[in-house]
Amino acid sequence: MLTAVRRFLFGSPLPTAEEVHQRLTKVKALAVFSSDALSSVAYATEEILLVLVVAGSAALGFSLPIALVIAGLLAIVATSYYQTIHGYPSGGGAYIVAYDNLGVWPGLTAAAALLIDYVLTVAVSITAGIAAITSAFPVLLPFRVELCLLAIALIAWANLRGVRESGTLFAIPTYGFVFIFLTLIVVGLVRLITGTLSPALVHTTPGVGRGTQALTLFLILRAFASGCTALTGIEAISNGIPAFQKPEADNAGKTLIAMAALLMTMFLGITFLARSLGVTPVEDQTVVSQIGRQVFGNGPLYLALQAATALILVLAANTSFADFPRLSAILARARYLPRQLTNLGDRLVFANGIIALAFLASSLVVVFGGQTHRLIPLYAVGVFLSFTLSQMGMVRHWHKERGQGWQWKVAVNGLGAVATGAVLLVIAASKFIHGAWIVILLIPIFVWMFRTIKRHYLTLAKQLSLEGLGLEEWVGMASYQTHKVVVPVSGMHRGTLAALRFARSLSKDVTAVVVDVEPQFTASVREKWPVWGHDVPLVVLESPYRSTIGSLLAYLDEVDQREPERGPAVVVLPEFVPARWWHHLLHNQTALLLKTVLTYRQGQTGQDRVIIDVPYHLRR
Amino acid sequence: MLTAVRRFLFGSPLPTAEEVHQRLTKVKALAVFSSDALSSVAYATEEILLVLVVAGSAALGFSLPIALVIAGLLAIVATSYYQTIHGYPSGGGAYIVAYDNLGVWPGLTAAAALLIDYVLTVAVSITAGIAAITSAFPVLLPFRVELCLLAIALIAWANLRGVRESGTLFAIPTYGFVFIFLTLIVVGLVRLITGTLSPALVHTTPGVGRGTQALTLFLILRAFASGCTALTGIEAISNGIPAFQKPEADNAGKTLIAMAALLMTMFLGITFLARSLGVTPVEDQTVVSQIGRQVFGNGPLYLALQAATALILVLAANTSFADFPRLSAILARARYLPRQLTNLGDRLVFANGIIALAFLASSLVVVFGGQTHRLIPLYAVGVFLSFTLSQMGMVRHWHKERGQGWQWKVAVNGLGAVATGAVLLVIAASKFIHGAWIVILLIPIFVWMFRTIKRHYLTLAKQLSLEGLGLEEWVGMASYQTHKVVVPVSGMHRGTLAALRFARSLSKDVTAVVVDVEPQFTASVREKWPVWGHDVPLVVLESPYRSTIGSLLAYLDEVDQREPERGPAVVVLPEFVPARWWHHLLHNQTALLLKTVLTYRQGQTGQDRVIIDVPYHLRR
Repeated sequence: MLTAVRRFLFGSPLPTAEEVHQRLTKVKALAVFSSDALSSVAYATEEILLVLVVAGSAALGFSLPIALVIAGLLAIVATSYYQTIHGYPSGGGAYIVAYDNLGVWPGLTAAAALLIDYVLTVAVSITAGIAAITSAFPVLLPFRVELCLLAIALIAWANLRGVRESGTLFAIPTYGFVFIFLTLIVVGLVRLITGTLSPALVHTTPGVGRGTQALTLFLILRAFASGCTALTGIEAISNGIPAFQKPEADNAGKTLIAMAALLMTMFLGITFLARSLGVTPVEDQTVVSQIGRQVFGNGPLYLALQAATALILVLAANTSFADFPRLSAILARARYLPRQLTNLGDRLVFANGIIALAFLASSLVVVFGGQTHRLIPLYAVGVFLSFTLSQMGMVRHWHKERGQGWQWKVAVNGLGAVATGAVLLVIAASKFIHGAWIVILLIPIFVWMFRTIKRHYLTLAKQLSLEGLGLEEWVGMASYQTHKVVVPVSGMHRGTLAALRFARSLSKDVTAVVVDVEPQFTASVREKWPVWGHDVPLVVLESPYRSTIGSLLAYLDEVDQREPERGPAVVVLPEFVPARWWHHLLHNQTALLLKTVLTYRQGQTGQDRVIIDVPYHLRR
Repeated sequence: MLTAVRRFLFGSPLPTAEEVHQRLTKVKALAVFSSDALSSVAYATEEILLVLVVAGSAALGFSLPIALVIAGLLAIVATSYYQTIHGYPSGGGAYIVAYDNLGVWPGLTAAAALLIDYVLTVAVSITAGIAAITSAFPVLLPFRVELCLLAIALIAWANLRGVRESGTLFAIPTYGFVFIFLTLIVVGLVRLITGTLSPALVHTTPGVGRGTQALTLFLILRAFASGCTALTGIEAISNGIPAFQKPEADNAGKTLIAMAALLMTMFLGITFLARSLGVTPVEDQTVVSQIGRQVFGNGPLYLALQAATALILVLAANTSFADFPRLSAILARARYLPRQLTNLGDRLVFANGIIALAFLASSLVVVFGGQTHRLIPLYAVGVFLSFTLSQMGMVRHWHKERGQGWQWKVAVNGLGAVATGAVLLVIAASKFIHGAWIVILLIPIFVWMFRTIKRHYLTLAKQLSLEGLGLEEWVGMASYQTHKVVVPVSGMHRGTLAALRFARSLSKDVTAVVVDVEPQFTASVREKWPVWGHDVPLVVLESPYRSTIGSLLAYLDEVDQREPERGPAVVVLPEFVPARWWHHLLHNQTALLLKTVLTYRQGQTGQDRVIIDVPYHLRR
């Protein structure tokens, strides 16, 4: 029954042998790896405007110079990653590059930053995607948190079933998005030049004209920091090089350049249009939606724009659902995370990682009310920390390798490291009180957690190791040893008989024990014992404090101490198993409790006690 | 550690022998048994006014005639219970009287009504008690739900420690309450007559003068129904007769008359004062508090009034913490409720019943926002249903017994049954949509639950019974049977060795099984096996779908079917036990999962499989 539901939801199990990889052409690879980066143009401009608007609508003019600086930064980072692709053709994620070249601590720091980023990518992309939908259909606005949770659940479900990163599947929404965005920009520019589009405010927010804060340098830096979210996802190609057709690194490099060019064009175009049309950020409609309504009107082209935006943002979230479980499996294999994260599920996916990501991203969405701009301050810190560590790692890499033209390569990655490091400081400082502090606090906590987990696994391996064990002590033992066996009895019933029978088949030295909590029960056991007791001696334990478990434990300790050389007595537990789950609620869970206590508690002799469960199934 | 905390919180365990009962004088008994009944004067008048006020302040004049009718009803019910006391000198709760005289179904109905009532007594008393406090300190009003939950938690904690129903402890607040209430009434009347107290509205609620509804008969009946909460708790003495000094029934009867007289005086006095002072119910202050401020001013006497009110309401809630666990233990012994409710805890209290009551009452407080008047419509239904069933039972009792003057006794209890039955109908009808429907729905659900639970226990007893079992089959079995033993192995470590050693001591027919999910693990096991394998054959199971548990279960079925006459193979499970609780999170819970699946799943041969747990404790 449960299995059938599971099959229906997640499909039949896939054999391990089906784990094959498909190689991607450049065109398909761009679709697969760029959704995260390209989709950020859907919100990056708006985030800049949202900061500037507090200084009044005049301040919005700064958006264009800020966007140009960000575009320059994008060029630096893209060049830097172009080199990483050639330095790590097998895939150079920030964790691997930092770990290899800078050591354990920077590696773990990068890993922590990346894990946090993946969670935030899901939360930011989904809230922005749902914002694209609620902009077109404002009636849905009150349900945005619910819609976000639904979207996350659907993506998680698709990933649990196992979506292949199929190029064809990704190509349609990605290229659709690029196409409609470029159309928007071109049509908008043409209509601006021909004068058929007059700059008119769609909404006028009261009081926006004046603004509530002065336009300080700090505010401009904060707007810049918000806009830097446009760069998120740019590293994706450098992680996925093995998926490219041969020559992998060359193809990946070209794809990266194409992606960076597209991203820069779209980001600058949207920011320019927003400025020229005098768009002001409002609560219930995104900036892109406002531009779309002005340029396209309310017709099918506008709806297509919103649909494409929502779709690519869902794809962007989806990339994290591939990256997060993969990185956590890598960390788990290195023993820095619980080993359950390495389990390849029925459908050849890291199911636990997918579930963890969905849970964490959903929590963020709920806590931050499904609002993109409240999540943004948390977002960029981790991204730029991993950028910086990765570039620093590459500097070290070239320096160690000293290949042809290594000084030049060091200079390029060095510039990247300095630029992203400076931006990181700007972001951390300007966004600190708005939420960046959360990530700044979380990263060392994660690193500490990684180390603690690793230490546990190492200690464990040492304790369980066979090295230095004496063969005689552990293997050369006589068979058919006569164990001391104790059977706790709660009443005379078929379950008791089954347990006694098994105990007698084990050993001649069996004792049954009943704790005298309810006198009438004890009397009934005593009465039936001569007939049904398998000739086993019956011990009645007084229990003035009515503690069944306490009395049994004391008795077991006493038995063990009588002949310590024979080891702890084996406990045979009669347990009847109800036919329906709710029947459990109607029974004292004494057997379960006793089992748990005995498992966790070592006997006074310090040896481990064996516990034998003899179930007796009830039929209804 | 845990034990120490538990001792600190709840005290040391008490031996069963300490379960003794103290006999109460009439004066102390009045204090112990009347807090529930007397405390209702703190809110009953207000509940009448709250209904009438919707018809405008002129309608408030009806409160006095309504109070007089309720006083008459009180006289009838008290007389009726006076007879019950003499008919059931060993304690005649509604459940026992109805069960004995009317049969199973009416008995269970009364039990359901009583359990619901006890929960509501706690919720109503606590919310009203906290209202007395927030009336004096309005600053606490926003925290009333939190304060209610805190109060319930404290009472539950005191009861888990085991508060004796100590007469002395109860006497101070109860008599303090009676004293200050009578003082309030006397001073109020004297000042009214001498004209030093002018009827002036403390608060004027806008629009109250006109009212929003017409003053219909239905509204008056609804006000009457609300006022009937004054009668709650009047049955307490008839349940507690054995606690009185000899002659128990006589003393209990006299105490009942004293309590009824006090209750009637206080209820009529407060209602009269409320009328004469023109008090209108308001949101942030109770009616009693308004009267108190007018009569006493804002000085220490007023604060004493509020403190005494809050205190007796806490005592009233406390009585339910004695009654609910006791009744549920009685029902559980009769197998109508889970048997855990009969467990006498460390401190000689029915801990599970106390916890259940605290949980249910807290839920009610949260759901109804800590507001007394929203809980009242639920309250009276159960009370009057149990009154009616109890009186009907007494009619039957006298009729069966036919002792001296039985016709007279039948007439008295008959009048009581008719009166409370009529009131029950009025309450159910007039309060139906305001919440009475919840209780009317819950009572049959409870009764159905009682029967279902009883049926389960009866079925269980039949299935476990030794009757009709063949002695040869169940007892006369050869010792030292050679079991088939299977040891699932996940890797070569000390835990595995311990399990293999135990398995070999059990039987010569041992097989070790490893599921090939991770090839490098399997290889390591194969390599170490010749040295450490105890000469046990090792079987490697292919698992194309990476399901350890699925492959093991299939293998066990196969082994069982090979020699079905030998019964299911015994499974010996190596299990290492981590030293810290959080270490569990770092391990696949395969052993635990396998144990659970094996316990609940019967083998294909339909017999029960024995599971042996060999723990290996990690030291850190």
